Order: sequence, then structure tokens, then C-alpha cells
Amino acid sequence: MIEYRTLRIALLGAGTVGAQVAKLLLEGGDELGARVGARLELVGIAVRDLDAKRTVDLPRELLTTDAERLVLGADIVVELLGGIEPAKTLILKALNSGADVITGNKALLAEHGPELFDAAEQVGAQLYYEAAVGAAIPIIRPLRESLAGDRIQRIFGIVNGSTNFILDRMTEHGATKDEAMKLAFELGYLEADPTLDVDGYDAAQKVAILAGLAFHTAVPLSAVYREGIGDVTPEVVERARSLGYVVKLLGICERVTTADGLEGVSARVYPALVPQQHPLTAVHGGNNAVFVQAEAAGDLMFYGAGAGGLQTASAVLGDVVSAARRHIAGGPGVGESTHAKLPLLGIESARTRYLITLRVADEPGVLATIASIFAEQGTSIETVQQTAAAGADAPTASLVIGTHHALEAALAATVEALRASSVVTDVASVLRIEGA
Amino acid sequence: MIEYRTLRIALLGAGTVGAQVAKLLLEGGDELGARVGARLELVGIAVRDLDAKRTVDLPRELLTTDAERLVLGADIVVELLGGIEPAKTLILKALNSGADVITGNKALLAEHGPELFDAAEQVGAQLYYEAAVGAAIPIIRPLRESLAGDRIQRIFGIVNGSTNFILDRMTEHGATKDEAMKLAFELGYLEADPTLDVDGYDAAQKVAILAGLAFHTAVPLSAVYREGIGDVTPEVVERARSLGYVVKLLGICERVTTADGLEGVSARVYPALVPQQHPLTAVHGGNNAVFVQAEAAGDLMFYGAGAGGLQTASAVLGDVVSAARRHIAGGPGVGESTHAKLPLLGIESARTRYLITLRVADEPGVLATIASIFAEQGTSIETVQQTAAAGADAPTASLVIGTHHALEAALAATVEALRASSVVTDVASVLRIEGA
Repeated sequence: MIEYRTLRIALLGAGTVGAQVAKLLLEGGDELGARVGARLELVGIAVRDLDAKRTVDLPRELLTTDAERLVLGADIVVELLGGIEPAKTLILKALNSGADVITGNKALLAEHGPELFDAAEQVGAQLYYEAAVGAAIPIIRPLRESLAGDRIQRIFGIVNGSTNFILDRMTEHGATKDEAMKLAFELGYLEADPTLDVDGYDAAQKVAILAGLAFHTAVPLSAVYREGIGDVTPEVVERARSLGYVVKLLGICERVTTADGLEGVSARVYPALVPQQHPLTAVHGGNNAVFVQAEAAGDLMFYGAGAGGLQTASAVLGDVVSAARRHIAGGPGVGESTHAKLPLLGIESARTRYLITLRVADEPGVLATIASIFAEQGTSIETVQQTAAAGADAPTASLVIGTHHALEAALAATVEALRASSVVTDVASVLRIEGA
Repeated sequence: MIEYRTLRIALLGAGTVGAQVAKLLLEGGDELGARVGARLELVGIAVRDLDAKRTVDLPRELLTTDAERLVLGADIVVELLGGIEPAKTLILKALNSGADVITGNKALLAEHGPELFDAAEQVGAQLYYEAAVGAAIPIIRPLRESLAGDRIQRIFGIVNGSTNFILDRMTEHGATKDEAMKLAFELGYLEADPTLDVDGYDAAQKVAILAGLAFHTAVPLSAVYREGIGDVTPEVVERARSLGYVVKLLGICERVTTADGLEGVSARVYPALVPQQHPLTAVHGGNNAVFVQAEAAGDLMFYGAGAGGLQTASAVLGDVVSAARRHIAGGPGVGESTHAKLPLLGIESARTRYLITLRVADEPGVLATIASIFAEQGTSIETVQQTAAAGADAPTASLVIGTHHALEAALAATVEALRASSVVTDVASVLRIEGA
């Protein structure tokens, strides 16, 4: 019989994901161990309240409230507490004691990633975080390793399941946002405080993580431009539909060359119009899909569940196996590379397309006036659709104008000029078009 | 200035993929090196003919016909010769001299994989092969690492770009198979000898590799059941379309439990009917898409170009970076795990669905007779569609029967019994349904 080395695993947190990780480790640890050539032993689970009700029954003798003590005796520490503290302190303690750390904590990584990676590198430990983006979808490892020999141009996709669920209910079932959010709460897609999802913070955290990996540059959360789905009303969804688009909250990061020839990184989150024939419009419910465009590889897509305790636990256990293999074989794993240090560009440097809906006076010469405003700002019109609107006092018309790609700064200036124009009654909506 | 260690890279082969790898290494080697913290030096390219015409101009001084000598001085050997020999001998020499080896050689891996992995393990070297399946699509690494903590149930998808191109032309453009194959030759999707693709060998090699990884079991090519697209005529494609299906050549491997309660692996390649609403029907041209169904992760999809020199080179360079990191950091990488040693089951143990088109005598009692044949064989009918056919002498009808899932053995016996029945004029076609 082979004598296996035992690897001690400490789990911090027994919430939706943590409880599933514990269950899978307790039930399937022997099979995982056989894959690695080690005995994987879950030595303890740190919780705040020993008596809290949990989604999975966990052995009482494994529970402890002393997270610090648990961390210090472990070979592998799995942090699923969420939030900045005490997660950050515990991770640093674990790394400094030589343990490998696995985390799904996107908030922590987006805000303090570089500090944590530095700490890991200094002691030759590893920090794994496949669960931080796209739940079970393998996206971190492909970027970190499979595409490490390529040059990534752009990543864009749906990285927040909750808002995709809400927008999908509005699009496919004609729900109001309140109805969609109520259902999202009931089904567990939204937390008690929905701000993190609805205002785009969660998506922005993930974009910061993806951009850092893709462009070998530290990208703090503050460098990610962010708009949530607050302004997406049923009218916006319906108007988009009538024009052949679906509204999706997108996370985008890309290599951008400015007018001065400077290459930098643009990272942003906003609701955008996606053409109906684009594969992203087929991503329903709480699912996620990430497109990666690389110079040699071309277009790649990764699709799967974007949330869920069990699904996220799959990604965590993949990282546990990686860490265990590293412990058995010795030698450091894959460090983070930020050698490129590309400048981080603001939203004004992004090149996007706008779809602008205006209400204008229905009289001769108005279209010429509008067109000249676009020309003055250097933005080029691609499509115009004019419909007469049922006016109250004066006859008005509705104009829907699609632009070619232009600098966001120029597009924003165009919208300002339109608002100031006497022939424009109202700028009814301004939405970016992506994926076309 | 940092003194970087130099890693010597030897390239074997300068065909479609090899030439692109050389170009990317020569042009982008410095940037890749910075990501790793090493100098990556392409020290030579072994070719058969120094004067052959190539898709990319390569520095003459790097070319050599002495592959053996080139291999022995290298830290990393990239084998892109294809075929069994001399590739196998050169890879073994490279591994035995301590070099890490990167290969895209699916034929070699499918037939001699275990021998090569053993050789690598014995000397603590690594064998990387992301390019062997799905060109640039990261699928090997996600299976080997990201999903290593999960339990994979099933992998299925389009893993051969050439046949997908041919079937897609027949489906979308009404082309005959000859027309579609002619165009595939012209566009470089088919080799001079198309057998490898058209008869399903290439897909079967990839299925053998995926099944081995997914189920931690050595799966030789001979264990993969294989049918090519030889019988897929425009009539078959058109009949499928009229019934709401698209014909795709699928590679499938899955965990199967036999009637005796034995758990084993079923691996197979055949053209199958995919329901029109399934995402696989949207995979056009030479693209590939692989679905992975895992116990915890749920359904995942990986999509991208399935062929192409540049795209495949991206996967090779990702492996070069992995190998380089390993050389810098020391310690073995990820070994292959075949600890599960599941039995390999034949096609008869697969559970599939059939769509059977019959011509039968158009007279009372025929449907009852047909239905009783199904019942006797223990296969359950799900749908029946009957249309009167323009008969010559006697009036005949056309019956299209869809079955529920049943053991392939029972379905095959049902078709035999139908052929033997006096009321059946002709069994016009038998196709499996997948993805429904």
C-alpha cells in the first residue's frame, strides 16, 4: 500500500459556497486525493456562529470560531468569507506561514490584489482564484496559462449573473425591473443589499481582475469605469428590441491606442445594446459568457453558470487540486505578471458606438441642423430612423441615430451639443452598442 | 538590469503551425520572456528539406535537417511534425534528456500517450499538448486543472473543423458533399488525403485524449467507436432540416453505468441529429465547440477556431510559457492521472436515441405491426410521423420514428428486426439524436 502524504486543508467560511466545498471535500476527498497522490484532510471550518443554520449539515467537531489558529496549522487555506476584513489579514497570515491560499473573493482581489500577490511571491506560496470570476467557468487559468503566449486584444462579456437574470426577465418576459428584482431575490440571485450587483460593482471587480491578467498590468478597481442598470427601464428594453438589440450589462477591457499613439488599457462596465444575432443575447438567466479576442487565437468564448454554491465550489476544488499537486511536487506555481505596466485610460479614450434617441421639432431643416451638430463634433452618423411622434402642442418627431465608432469623448460632447440645441426637445436615451 | 536565464527552444517542423510558432517566437519572444522572467531563444528548426517553400520566411541559419542533434541541446522541444515516426523517437529522446516537450500531435497521443507520459514522469519532465484538441481553444488545461476537483459526466461537441465545414456548407448552402469537399480543399480545411477527417479518425483521436483526461483512465484510440460522414447525403441533411435538426459530426465521451451496475467510459464519434435550438447548431464553418457536463460545475461550453496555423500556434506558445515557467521555478508540473482505470465500454453499452425513417406498405395494421416490433425489442417510441408516399406499384407510406433513450444494443436489434419485417419496404435512414 502506498503511504500518502497528508495535506491539511483549512476552510474559512461556511456560506453558500463554503458549505458546498466542505461537503464535496468530505464526500469526495479520497477520490481527489487519488488524483493527486496525497491525502486531503479538511482539518477545520472557521465560522462566526457555531449554531448558525446552514444549507448543508457539517460535522460539529470541524467547526471553530478561531480562524487565526486554524490558518496557522494548514497547508492549504480556502478563504470564502468575502469582504475585505478579516479575509485579508487571514490570507496574509496563511501565505506568510507558507500555505497556499485559494479565494473566490473578488472584492479583495480587485482592491488589494497586488499586495496579496507580492506577499505570496515573497514566500514562494501561491494564490489561486478561479472562483472569483464566472463561478465554475474556467477563465482565470486559460488567461493565466493557456493564452500566456498570445497577445490579448479584448475581453468582453456577461460577468454578473444577477443583473443578467434581471435584464433577461425584462427582455424575455416583459417584467418591470421591480418584478424582476423581486424574483431574483426569491431565487437567491440577489443579496439583501443588491447594490453590489445592480450598480455594477461586482462586474467592475471582475473586469479589474480579468484586465490585470490579460494585459499584464495591475488594474485597480478605481480604473474601471462603471455604470449600473439603474437607467434601464422597460421602455429602454422595448425600444432596443424594436431596433434589433438586447440590453446586456457588459464588462469590457481592451488594449486601446490613443490619438497620441499611446497604448493603454480601457476597462469599463455598462449596459449596452447587443445585436440580436450575437451569441451573447442567447445567454439567459444567471449564466455568464466571456469572449476573448487574441491576436493569434482569434475569438474564443467561455460559457457556463455564473453563480451558485455548487458551481463555484467546483472552481474552488480545482484550485485545491492545483495547490495540492504543487505541495506534492514542490516548486512555485504561476506568479502574476505585471511587467507590461500599461497606462490605464479613462472612459474618454474608449472607442464606442452610440445609439441616441431624440425628440425634435417636426419641421423642415431639423435633420440638417442635427447632422451638422454631429459633423462639428467629428462623429460620423451610420443610421437614422425618423418617426412622427404624437405631439401635444407643437408637432414633434422621434429620431433614432446610430453612430460609427468614435472616441467616447467626442460622442459625449455630441450629446452635450444636442442637449443644448434649440431644435432638440429631449434626448430620450443614449446607449452604447457593443458586439456589432 | 536583470540577468535573465536563457531557455533554448528547439522546433521540429515548419509546416502550417510550425512556421507560425517560429514567427511568433522570433517577433514576440522578448515580450513572452518578460512574462516569464527568462530569455526565450529559438535555437533551431528541424525540417526535412532546407529549400522547401514555406508560408513564412524563416532565417536560413536556424534551419537544420539534423533533428536529433537539435533536440539534445534544448530545454524545451516543440514537436509539430505530425505522424508517429520520427516524432515519437524524438520526443522520447527529448524527455530523456530532461527537456519539456510540447506537441500538437493527436495521432501520436491517441496511440502512444501512456508510453510518452510514463517516460516524462520517470525523468520528471513534462509533456504539454493544448494544441492537440480544438486548436486555440483552451480545453486540455481546463480539464487537467480547473475541473480536476469535479466529477465530469460527459463531454460532447464538434472537435473536427474540416467535417464541420463540409456539413455546414451542405446545411446552410445546400451544397452536395463533393462541392463542399472541393471548397474545403481549396480553403485548406482538408488535406490531400481527406480520410483522416472525413472518416472520423481525427475526431476519434481527440475524443481518446479528452476521455483519458476527463475520466482519469487510459483510453486508447481503439476504444473509440467511430463513424465518419460518408453516409451523410444532401437528402439526409434535408430530411433532418425538415424535422428540426442539423446534422453534425460529434465526438462524445461519457461515464456510463451498465445494466450490471458497472461504471465505465463510453467514447464515440458519429454524425448525429442536433435539435435546431441547440447552441451547437450555431457553430459554423471550421469552428469547434466542446460542452463539458460536470457534477458540480454544471454545463460549460468552450468555443473557438478549430484549426488554422496561427490559432494553433497560440496554444503551442501558451504551452511554451508554461514549460518556461516550470524551468525557471523548478519542480514537476501536472502529471497525467489514470488512477481511476475505468473499464472501456463498447458502443452497445451507450444509451442513445434513434430517428428511423422507414418506407412501409400503406395498409391497415402496419403501424401496429411496427409498434410491436419496437415493444418486443424493449425500445420505447417517442414520436411517429406518417406521410403517404407516391407509390409505384403498391401504395407505400413513409414513417419517421423517434425513440426514447435506450441501450444502443437494443436500438440496433430493433433496426435489424425492422429490416426483417415483411411490412417494411426499406429502412431509409437511421440517425442518432444528441443534445436533446
